[in-house]
Amino acid sequence: MHALVERMRQQDMRALAKAITMVENDHPDKLTLLSDVFSQKKHARYVGITGSPGAGKSSLVNRLITHIRSEGKTVAIIAVDPTSPFSGGALLGDRVRMNQHFTDDGVYIRSMATRGSLGGLARATKDAVRICDAYGFDVVIVETVGVGQSELDIMKIVDTTALVLTPNSGDVLQIFKAGIMEIADLFVINKADLPGYGKLKSLLKELIMMSKTDEHEKAIVKTITTENKGIDKLWQKINEHHDFLYQTKVGTKRRIMQQELEVYELIREEIWRDVEKFVEADETLQVDETSDPYKLARDWYQQWKKKGEV
Amino acid sequence: MHALVERMRQQDMRALAKAITMVENDHPDKLTLLSDVFSQKKHARYVGITGSPGAGKSSLVNRLITHIRSEGKTVAIIAVDPTSPFSGGALLGDRVRMNQHFTDDGVYIRSMATRGSLGGLARATKDAVRICDAYGFDVVIVETVGVGQSELDIMKIVDTTALVLTPNSGDVLQIFKAGIMEIADLFVINKADLPGYGKLKSLLKELIMMSKTDEHEKAIVKTITTENKGIDKLWQKINEHHDFLYQTKVGTKRRIMQQELEVYELIREEIWRDVEKFVEADETLQVDETSDPYKLARDWYQQWKKKGEV
Repeated sequence: MHALVERMRQQDMRALAKAITMVENDHPDKLTLLSDVFSQKKHARYVGITGSPGAGKSSLVNRLITHIRSEGKTVAIIAVDPTSPFSGGALLGDRVRMNQHFTDDGVYIRSMATRGSLGGLARATKDAVRICDAYGFDVVIVETVGVGQSELDIMKIVDTTALVLTPNSGDVLQIFKAGIMEIADLFVINKADLPGYGKLKSLLKELIMMSKTDEHEKAIVKTITTENKGIDKLWQKINEHHDFLYQTKVGTKRRIMQQELEVYELIREEIWRDVEKFVEADETLQVDETSDPYKLARDWYQQWKKKGEV
Repeated sequence: MHALVERMRQQDMRALAKAITMVENDHPDKLTLLSDVFSQKKHARYVGITGSPGAGKSSLVNRLITHIRSEGKTVAIIAVDPTSPFSGGALLGDRVRMNQHFTDDGVYIRSMATRGSLGGLARATKDAVRICDAYGFDVVIVETVGVGQSELDIMKIVDTTALVLTPNSGDVLQIFKAGIMEIADLFVINKADLPGYGKLKSLLKELIMMSKTDEHEKAIVKTITTENKGIDKLWQKINEHHDFLYQTKVGTKRRIMQQELEVYELIREEIWRDVEKFVEADETLQVDETSDPYKLARDWYQQWKKKGEV
């Protein structure tokens, strides 16, 4: 058993933080650590909260934390916020949260930093969720800013994804984005006291009708974070969806599919970790301004296959 | 020479569209096609326009098209808009543009669809830019919605990236995102007649000061699209940055780095294309709900390496 995992079993929060840093930095021992982490898997509920900037996700999550804690459950939040360290952006939101939950051992809040490599952040986030699960949190919330391709990918690890919308016209376009109807298990209309609430709700209803599958019928929850309204309902709907997933074959099918995709992704990552060394060390691979990248790539790979170096 | 590339040389726009569809669908002959495309590389200026939804990118690009056309130059627009086909979202913006430039052979507008695989969209977009260059457009504009990790990756192909902001408080947070100061070569404050313009400008100035490098000093351009104000200045600043890149060592260094990253990415893609077949055909790889994905991936890869099958 990895020393960090041992320490996590003794509820050492610093070990938890260190383990997440290891996956963030793509440490070579990562897979060994994560297998040990996986062996400690408990039964945390994985919840995703996503939506465009300004939809009020942070305040909503903050209220949700308080609600979950009032039920005696512990909760970890993985905030995927591509905000620069030199700015005050993420800090603003996190400070508010920290102030409120800082002294509470039942709450762990972690911001994930953007890594340079495409997909690196998604990978690290999934690993961080597993680490929080192994630590023993009852609920793990993944909060992502915006709905881009990486965000959609991140959400493949959670059981239930809530898409947070507001009744502003600009935000309505969010629901037309590709993949949204597939990724969102339920919709939250936040700031529901703003004008446009009715219009957004009927639009959502229509879309839900149009994209009906054998999955759980997607709920629409109305929240007003500033007045703490609708948070209990949101938590109830998240749990209903979770129960549906764990009491029906649909959920099993979905989890197996997610697992499969993840294994593929991990294999892909492992291969590249190996091959990258060869590419970087290969002095015959000369890239200059005028060279054809497509030809260089194809030729290098053909050569390398012949040599049989893996 | 690939038949499509031959036809593109004769200014056949349908061949251009078909070639882009090939890279979008990740066609097996893609790399061969793209090498032929690369051999036809002209000297198009690659311009990136990015920013959050609602910043007015589409209207801005529309004005920019008109301006570029007035100089007698041809222009292709690759719009990376993850909008679902069953919605009217993307169509709205594109229709407006189409109406105005539809009969103009000097303008080509193409929306790229989101592919399932992470990074697939970024890859296809870069290829599409090259295809438009080979066709002979003077300017290729890549327009992306939002600034996520995939978007940052897409922008690695362009010479000059303009980040479009508006003086709304929500949008200000955009500039704090990680990678923005690195990716944005110049800033556009659009809808500059809205309150908050002065505040945003001084904030930007401060950030530019803080992150000063040996690169070109990042300009701030003020535009009001509805009044067609600032478009000429924007085009001028884009060209100034472009000239800087092609007249100094900084630009050469940057292009070689981009080329290198691209070759790595292409090799990575090629390898996976091969290995994926083995993974999918391997019936010994059994994934179920409780299996440890990290162990499965590691074990499978070790086994596969031993067999030496590539």
